Amino acid sequence: MVKRKAAPEALIALGAVALRDRLASGALRAVDLASACLEVIAAREPEVQAWAWLDSDHVLKQAEALDLKRKQGRPIGPLHGLPVGLKDIIDTAKIPTENGTALDRGRVPREDAFIVARLKQAGAVIMGKTVTTELAFLNSAKTTNPHNSEHTPGGSSSGSAAAVAANMVPLSIGTQTGGSIIRPGSYCGVTAFKPTFGMVPRTGVLRSAPTLDTIGVYGHSVEDAALLADVLAGHDPLDPATSPIPSPRLYETASAKPPLKPVFAFVRPFGWDQAEPEMQEAVVELVEFLGEQCFEVALPRAFEEALQQHRTIYAAEMAKWYYPYEKRGGDNLPASVKTLMSEGKSLPARDYIAALDWTALLNGALGEIFERCDAMIMPAATGPAPKGFETTGNPIFNSVWTLCGTPAVSIPIFAAGNGLPMGLQLVGPRDGDGRLLRTARWLVEHVKQADAA
Amino acid sequence: MVKRKAAPEALIALGAVALRDRLASGALRAVDLASACLEVIAAREPEVQAWAWLDSDHVLKQAEALDLKRKQGRPIGPLHGLPVGLKDIIDTAKIPTENGTALDRGRVPREDAFIVARLKQAGAVIMGKTVTTELAFLNSAKTTNPHNSEHTPGGSSSGSAAAVAANMVPLSIGTQTGGSIIRPGSYCGVTAFKPTFGMVPRTGVLRSAPTLDTIGVYGHSVEDAALLADVLAGHDPLDPATSPIPSPRLYETASAKPPLKPVFAFVRPFGWDQAEPEMQEAVVELVEFLGEQCFEVALPRAFEEALQQHRTIYAAEMAKWYYPYEKRGGDNLPASVKTLMSEGKSLPARDYIAALDWTALLNGALGEIFERCDAMIMPAATGPAPKGFETTGNPIFNSVWTLCGTPAVSIPIFAAGNGLPMGLQLVGPRDGDGRLLRTARWLVEHVKQADAA
Repeated sequence: MVKRKAAPEALIALGAVALRDRLASGALRAVDLASACLEVIAAREPEVQAWAWLDSDHVLKQAEALDLKRKQGRPIGPLHGLPVGLKDIIDTAKIPTENGTALDRGRVPREDAFIVARLKQAGAVIMGKTVTTELAFLNSAKTTNPHNSEHTPGGSSSGSAAAVAANMVPLSIGTQTGGSIIRPGSYCGVTAFKPTFGMVPRTGVLRSAPTLDTIGVYGHSVEDAALLADVLAGHDPLDPATSPIPSPRLYETASAKPPLKPVFAFVRPFGWDQAEPEMQEAVVELVEFLGEQCFEVALPRAFEEALQQHRTIYAAEMAKWYYPYEKRGGDNLPASVKTLMSEGKSLPARDYIAALDWTALLNGALGEIFERCDAMIMPAATGPAPKGFETTGNPIFNSVWTLCGTPAVSIPIFAAGNGLPMGLQLVGPRDGDGRLLRTARWLVEHVKQADAA
Repeated sequence: MVKRKAAPEALIALGAVALRDRLASGALRAVDLASACLEVIAAREPEVQAWAWLDSDHVLKQAEALDLKRKQGRPIGPLHGLPVGLKDIIDTAKIPTENGTALDRGRVPREDAFIVARLKQAGAVIMGKTVTTELAFLNSAKTTNPHNSEHTPGGSSSGSAAAVAANMVPLSIGTQTGGSIIRPGSYCGVTAFKPTFGMVPRTGVLRSAPTLDTIGVYGHSVEDAALLADVLAGHDPLDPATSPIPSPRLYETASAKPPLKPVFAFVRPFGWDQAEPEMQEAVVELVEFLGEQCFEVALPRAFEEALQQHRTIYAAEMAKWYYPYEKRGGDNLPASVKTLMSEGKSLPARDYIAALDWTALLNGALGEIFERCDAMIMPAATGPAPKGFETTGNPIFNSVWTLCGTPAVSIPIFAAGNGLPMGLQLVGPRDGDGRLLRTARWLVEHVKQADAA
């Protein structure tokens, strides 16, 4: 039996694409959708605690202005009227952006991050700032898992994943340096998408390890995620990881029918033994269900060292980029940050430079696998969201793909025995984001059809 | 009185652009030009020693094939029939590429470097490999200065600069990580051009410090340099410093009349006091001659630290990239390489990562200067080529611009009391290569006209 949703929640649960259609046609006013979001937030925020900053007036004013714009017949953007939550490490002009740390209490940026400017151009409603773990690292923040408030929502994009899962907003934005987009997506039961490194400009977003820092999105469906990511992708001369490339047309590709039945490569990533039996079983069962469309393959041996290289880069770059925080209030930094920074400080430059080579090496080694499949599949996390808040969970199945810069998606197609969701992770080749999303969408539909049959 | 040149030398001294016109029209056969080059080499090589590898048959066969192609009416490339010398750290398929070191004796690459493939496509004749200092660093190699064999030609692109200066070839290619293109250009009295970092792909070229390593060119005139650089510029997915940008159209821009009289900013770079009086006087005299077209400006204070940051990056990256050489034959490495590598090995990753920030910082600080001028002018070296071979000279006026990644040109418009040439360096903003070359060409002509008057 499907749990009945209250009216505003049911509206938001339609997902970004359906809402966009209604908003664009005039069947739904931006102000009504914004009010629905505020209603859900009012009801669920005391428990979920997804928001670091939220101002109802500010939300409604944006929505009213967008409604007026549409009424006047002026051109509307691709996200017209859609509320979007922003992880609180993304700078917003005149709106506090505190990076989850007391060291930035009261910090108000003068300029919008590149992606915030993009969202405004596209007609999105900036809903507010979502809770991040402190300095986007490992320590739990106040957010709880919307499916069970005794469990972690995962981190560091805790609030962004929880806000979409709780139907507080149809869309939100997170970032991943280890496993901070995919893992919360898996724990909260929403679609999470981490695009190819370099696709989304990061100017105006907290830098923890710029070689790894990646912006990504949450939505109800794969198409929702594609719709949002399309708007964020682009070239920003201030972010050297980006380059002038044509629009990736993610939504168009993600919505299209695959020309052939997709083929999947099942991999047991390093750390497979640390996955809980019910996650292992869920994935293996899916592999059996896919039959001839899926083959198992071992990751190249180079991947055994990949986690270590990821850690080397993370430690060295965090030691550099968080140095101003250390200087201002080193004693107040979370222990996990201190530990990694002190590891980073003692790293020789040569080891760091050598670690940087691994991205190309690992991607090269994946070439053969991607020649034979549309996507690799594997667990998005080691199991459902852990109980309690001592940890935000284990990113062991995510960090390697952050290092590779390959696109990754988590789709909420599994459930654990305790009722909590679990995600399947799909990974594609760099710059193959559209095809990866199309494959993920196909798989969601394929599983749904089987469940219905 | 102009010194009479022997016939083949006079032909080559016409310069690449004039020769290209004759070759394209059929007035000159590629094989005749190649033979002229071989004649000059035969006459001068015993003294100049510019070549690490040269095979007359191989040269003539390429020229014959190009003549045949033209005769058959097949389309010819923009460098049709022009011989080009390649610094011996640039990989050439089936042709030895020994990086100037006994540790690579007998090394024959299987593949051409990206730029060698480009040259072949453009119809150039690969003349041979020019002498580089050992591993493109500071120790003198066998090449002498064509103007006086008791003096250094500079380094590390020693053979490439000397070969053009001695009229052995109209064009050649060098590389710069500190001052290895501009300084030999100044000492040998040829035009040297180091393009914006990221313009010319480096795949297949020895890596010493990839954040700094830059490919550049030598020719008789600024237009000659532009003609060659145009062919080399492009995007190579294997070189992450490059990106898909439109052709810079360097030759077209360099040959055009400036829309307004160019304006110059005279800077006394860090180390000005180390310049010899006759270099200082030559530059100051030029500044006076330029009158209202030139203003003096101080470099921003940040530049005081720039040389140190350059050294940090160079040391850390060399420690990493030359590690295989150290492993194979550490004892045999030149002392200068050992010293920098050992400095690099003890560098913390954090200092290295912090040094990387300086490129953007310094370029930002230059913005105000470049708003007011077409190019900065300053000495290309501290004086004429030093006597003897203990040193290849001081790169103090060059390394900072390698760190900045700004385009730089040396034009041979000064002469020292001992008759040796001295270069004026022009530096422009990143990606302003065409305009910088146009400004340099204007200045050469302007000075010539004044000398003639």
